[in-house]
Amino acid sequence: MISGKTTLIAHLGYPTFAFKAPLIYNPWFDKHGIDAVVVPMGVKPEHYREFLPLLFKMSNIRGALVTMPHKVTTTELVDELTPIAKVAGASNAVLLREDGSLLGDQFDGAGFTRGVARKGFDIKGKRALVVGNGGVGSPIAASLVADGLAEIGLFDPNISASEALAGRLAEHYPDTKVAIGSKDPDGYDLVVNATPLGMNDGDPLPMDTDRIAPTTFVADVVMKQTITPFLQAALDKGCPIQVGTDMLYEQIPAYLEFFGFGTTTPDELRAVSQVPA
Amino acid sequence: MISGKTTLIAHLGYPTFAFKAPLIYNPWFDKHGIDAVVVPMGVKPEHYREFLPLLFKMSNIRGALVTMPHKVTTTELVDELTPIAKVAGASNAVLLREDGSLLGDQFDGAGFTRGVARKGFDIKGKRALVVGNGGVGSPIAASLVADGLAEIGLFDPNISASEALAGRLAEHYPDTKVAIGSKDPDGYDLVVNATPLGMNDGDPLPMDTDRIAPTTFVADVVMKQTITPFLQAALDKGCPIQVGTDMLYEQIPAYLEFFGFGTTTPDELRAVSQVPA
Repeated sequence: MISGKTTLIAHLGYPTFAFKAPLIYNPWFDKHGIDAVVVPMGVKPEHYREFLPLLFKMSNIRGALVTMPHKVTTTELVDELTPIAKVAGASNAVLLREDGSLLGDQFDGAGFTRGVARKGFDIKGKRALVVGNGGVGSPIAASLVADGLAEIGLFDPNISASEALAGRLAEHYPDTKVAIGSKDPDGYDLVVNATPLGMNDGDPLPMDTDRIAPTTFVADVVMKQTITPFLQAALDKGCPIQVGTDMLYEQIPAYLEFFGFGTTTPDELRAVSQVPA
Repeated sequence: MISGKTTLIAHLGYPTFAFKAPLIYNPWFDKHGIDAVVVPMGVKPEHYREFLPLLFKMSNIRGALVTMPHKVTTTELVDELTPIAKVAGASNAVLLREDGSLLGDQFDGAGFTRGVARKGFDIKGKRALVVGNGGVGSPIAASLVADGLAEIGLFDPNISASEALAGRLAEHYPDTKVAIGSKDPDGYDLVVNATPLGMNDGDPLPMDTDRIAPTTFVADVVMKQTITPFLQAALDKGCPIQVGTDMLYEQIPAYLEFFGFGTTTPDELRAVSQVPA
């Protein structure tokens, strides 16, 4: 029950129609008796730069979930960015700190790495290939490297995206070896499709699945279907996999911790979720 | 259940702690399956002028309830004001129209006049005395006159408040007779306390109750206690009365109609209300 004492978490994006977060967070807040609410706010790009700072002047707001198309712009509007957000070049979470300053973080990658860790894959010291180095691949790469990856391969059809990401990684995590320009999965312990390939029927596979070893952990970020053709090829080889929606449910505990609401598990979130099947 | 398709009604004021509207509107929306939510937003005066126009650039907002300390400022920020809001010099409701323009209205007075009408008092052609011509008395006077009052008496310890209100009434409702400067209730069909007198123990009565006729309708705006000493004196004489909270519950149907959500009755609102007793 929303009252004048309820803490607001803004969910900023445009358009809002497909927002899932309110349907997961709010039932979880209810279940735990936490007096907070996620409120969708449809803000167009041309108003966002003015809107965000004013929003955080409100007396009853604690933070924001940020989604398309504002994740990159947000990095320019906060007072401080975490290293992960800097490397990602995007921020999907904003915390209003007690001194009134704004901290920007980025949990898409944490959602990814928490998911693979929960499935028993230890990132530390491993080699990973991230295909697609844009808005989804960059935070995944950042979180993998922050979690102790030894070597990362970056591939994007737009080579300058890979180069820019490699440069940011080198700046913040100089000990990690970075290779760019190849999407050959051979020799990697973990391979990720962070491109949109798989959203549409007839899309080519994001990489040559024949060259993926059966012991390689294979992950996809596409959420449109649970088992994409890419993941099906991996399953056919006996590879361990991670599906796209895991990233969504795994990142919510990271957000909750960031906002100071405690934590939870993806299983509990899936149980309370009101997202239509 | 809030989703990305939910229509937002902002509740603007500062501070927000004592806000009652979310605890009445939201259970009513739930009961009627209306996908809308009242969201408290604590906006300080120094940010309000910038915030309001940006808020209404959002894609999922329809309107705002406006409370202290923003009711007067709001009149300067909307594109059009209703005559009632102009006379009141304050706006507590903002509607985002389809063309993107903002209409400001004021329902404190409508809450008052709907209440007395529901109790069988026909305002048309009557004489009323409004003691207290500030933020509460002005909208009451405006709505009484708009509903066809023949003559209004205005009194305020600050005579310039009465004069300003009388001037605005004369401009918009030139047919109504206006008398200012006396709080003698003798001869009035309806008398209203629109001052804060009655909020604190030991407050003097707002007018000389000995000079109120038993047939006079007596109303109070003070909500701190249901039967104020002023209303008790009226009850002792056998006068019909209206209590302060009636104004709150009677104005909500006016708001709902304004926003296009249909209508309801104060009784239904009191039944769904989660406002603590």
